[in-house]
Amino acid sequence: VDQRAVRRANLGVVLEHVADSGPVSRATIAAGTGLNKTTVSSLVAELIEMRLLAETGDDERPGNVGRPAQTVRLSGNGVVSLGLEINIDYLATCATDLTGQVRHEHAVAVDNRNSQPGRVMGRLATLARRALADVEAQGLSLAGVTIAAPGLVDVASGTVVVAPDLGWRDVPLADLAAKRLAIRDVPLRVDNEANLGALAELWTGAGRGLSDFVYVSAEVGVGAGVVMGGQLYRGAFGFAGELGHLTVDPDGPRCTCGNRGCLAMLVGEDALLEIAGIEGPTEGSARLAATTLADRIRGGDTRTEDALRQIGEWLGLGLAGVVNVLNPEAIILGGYLGALVEWLEQPLTTALSERVLASNWAPCRILPSQIGEQAAVHGAAALPLREVISDPSSIRMHA
Amino acid sequence: VDQRAVRRANLGVVLEHVADSGPVSRATIAAGTGLNKTTVSSLVAELIEMRLLAETGDDERPGNVGRPAQTVRLSGNGVVSLGLEINIDYLATCATDLTGQVRHEHAVAVDNRNSQPGRVMGRLATLARRALADVEAQGLSLAGVTIAAPGLVDVASGTVVVAPDLGWRDVPLADLAAKRLAIRDVPLRVDNEANLGALAELWTGAGRGLSDFVYVSAEVGVGAGVVMGGQLYRGAFGFAGELGHLTVDPDGPRCTCGNRGCLAMLVGEDALLEIAGIEGPTEGSARLAATTLADRIRGGDTRTEDALRQIGEWLGLGLAGVVNVLNPEAIILGGYLGALVEWLEQPLTTALSERVLASNWAPCRILPSQIGEQAAVHGAAALPLREVISDPSSIRMHA
Repeated sequence: VDQRAVRRANLGVVLEHVADSGPVSRATIAAGTGLNKTTVSSLVAELIEMRLLAETGDDERPGNVGRPAQTVRLSGNGVVSLGLEINIDYLATCATDLTGQVRHEHAVAVDNRNSQPGRVMGRLATLARRALADVEAQGLSLAGVTIAAPGLVDVASGTVVVAPDLGWRDVPLADLAAKRLAIRDVPLRVDNEANLGALAELWTGAGRGLSDFVYVSAEVGVGAGVVMGGQLYRGAFGFAGELGHLTVDPDGPRCTCGNRGCLAMLVGEDALLEIAGIEGPTEGSARLAATTLADRIRGGDTRTEDALRQIGEWLGLGLAGVVNVLNPEAIILGGYLGALVEWLEQPLTTALSERVLASNWAPCRILPSQIGEQAAVHGAAALPLREVISDPSSIRMHA
Repeated sequence: VDQRAVRRANLGVVLEHVADSGPVSRATIAAGTGLNKTTVSSLVAELIEMRLLAETGDDERPGNVGRPAQTVRLSGNGVVSLGLEINIDYLATCATDLTGQVRHEHAVAVDNRNSQPGRVMGRLATLARRALADVEAQGLSLAGVTIAAPGLVDVASGTVVVAPDLGWRDVPLADLAAKRLAIRDVPLRVDNEANLGALAELWTGAGRGLSDFVYVSAEVGVGAGVVMGGQLYRGAFGFAGELGHLTVDPDGPRCTCGNRGCLAMLVGEDALLEIAGIEGPTEGSARLAATTLADRIRGGDTRTEDALRQIGEWLGLGLAGVVNVLNPEAIILGGYLGALVEWLEQPLTTALSERVLASNWAPCRILPSQIGEQAAVHGAAALPLREVISDPSSIRMHA
């Protein structure tokens, strides 16, 4: 039993080494992990059989003399995992393989405000089945499913505790999804969309190499994912990052949560469109709206430009508090904000420099998301694969 | 060399075990640490010689049958460390021994607003020398000194980067202190007062057993210490917890930092005294002011009661943002706030329940500090002793 546990752990050690180092020879894996070459060869053979690793053929880098070493890399032809996203005005799916390649991706504009969870899940399930059929046709096996949802999510039970913009309370989303999708034997999880967006940026986006940052997700709703010391910080009860319902204007407009002057009311997509005088909800996604706005400003529309400055000032006021308390290296602007960073950066930088005591000594950078509006659904897809990489044997248990 | 390193580490293992478990026998230490009995006896003998452990004599707990085991405990007669505090309206000193007993404590009211760092350090040095003479007379050896200061502190260089209420910028406090105190061969550090207060509450106060909390320090200035996952969180550059300069009223009064409507302007001691119609700065400490206010309210002074409610509402507005973003288990009210929790709890709880989205599912507790106004200077004194406990040999190096 002990030996099996050691072998299981070593499979993870080897797969993680390859994931971190790119194509490597067995000898390099042995040198890097401290395992002996015979063991490495046997582990690599098993990982190839599991379709998690693949031979790359002879290493043909120029300057390599002598007999070239046979190298292995992560396999894109074995497992895939599925990210699903429920947001206020769209549904999205994304399937990625172990190399990080997107193998299926789709998004549809749907108004989910004050919606029936069963109906929304029904629509999402249709999209999910299409994605699953597509990746199955590509010969890939499913390693896990994660659903990104706005609001407070209880990850342990897969419940959306409250999502004011959807009008949801205590929705057992994991249970609903399990029934609709008939997915068995692979992990099915629900997580907050901003947390998943932050993880995606940390793993493959603007957060790579950063230790402490706050990822801001802004579509209709506004949320945040807080990364500290290179780890997602979830808070004592799992509800950290609730940036959208931060009070920035105590006498401001009434919010869907019942309070007044929440940041989401002042910088969410609805506010942006209203200030800019655009009828909403727009057909298409928030990204489309952002593109429209950018085009207008470039065409000389000062009203839209002023609207964005106002958004930037409110957002800056809210973020200044967060930066004072957390002293992060960077704020990563996600959702529609990333596409408009050109006009938001200046009011945000001004707000932080005026309102953050440490700003002269520890300036906080404003970075646009590198993944864009898809960050949450990409993070949702990547999450199960991260687990496969650290514990490859886990996929056997559900196969 | 390697064997020396092992022995050095094992001295720490044994001392930490005794610190965590109270009086224990050598056999219990061996069982608890996995070290063999002969090694434990030798390590204990060395720690006794270093005056870090002491024999307790026979264990006379009732119900103990057979030959009672000889137990050892932390020694209160060996080392001591010194905490010094510079605050806006007082200076304080505190020396504690390894058992946590306070061996010297003193505080004086001094108005340090817009002060000369050299002059303040001169006064503090006089108090420090008195403390050192006192503990030396008690036969104790100095293990380290920590200075608590308000504002942004660069811990690595011992510099107060900015402390708006003192009017200080880039003050090399560790260097000034080293010159004035002629302390050699023991660690001399500077840290933010709210961080040290948070550590004191975590180690010996209201934060014991909590994993995620925010300690609020409020005297004239307002700061916070953020504890996450049982550890003090310092932020990317060491400046986390800057609660005092959080904007809560964008059009509010001008602050010493140059901005408007900072929380410190609205809930600091000056605001409290002004709203309550008390002339300030009061003689004596913030605690004295808090006691005066409590007495007034108990005597039926509704104006003071209203002032406190107003303070609680502003503080609640600022803390609601922090709680939305961090989702902590508790807020610990330190400084003058702890003594007035009776009147602050209700407006704070109301603000959090109205403005924190997760408040119905993950209520954040409001706890008074257990250490009180002395939290920062107690934390300052405790810090070097924590290091002695984890690495007892470190004291030899400076002896």
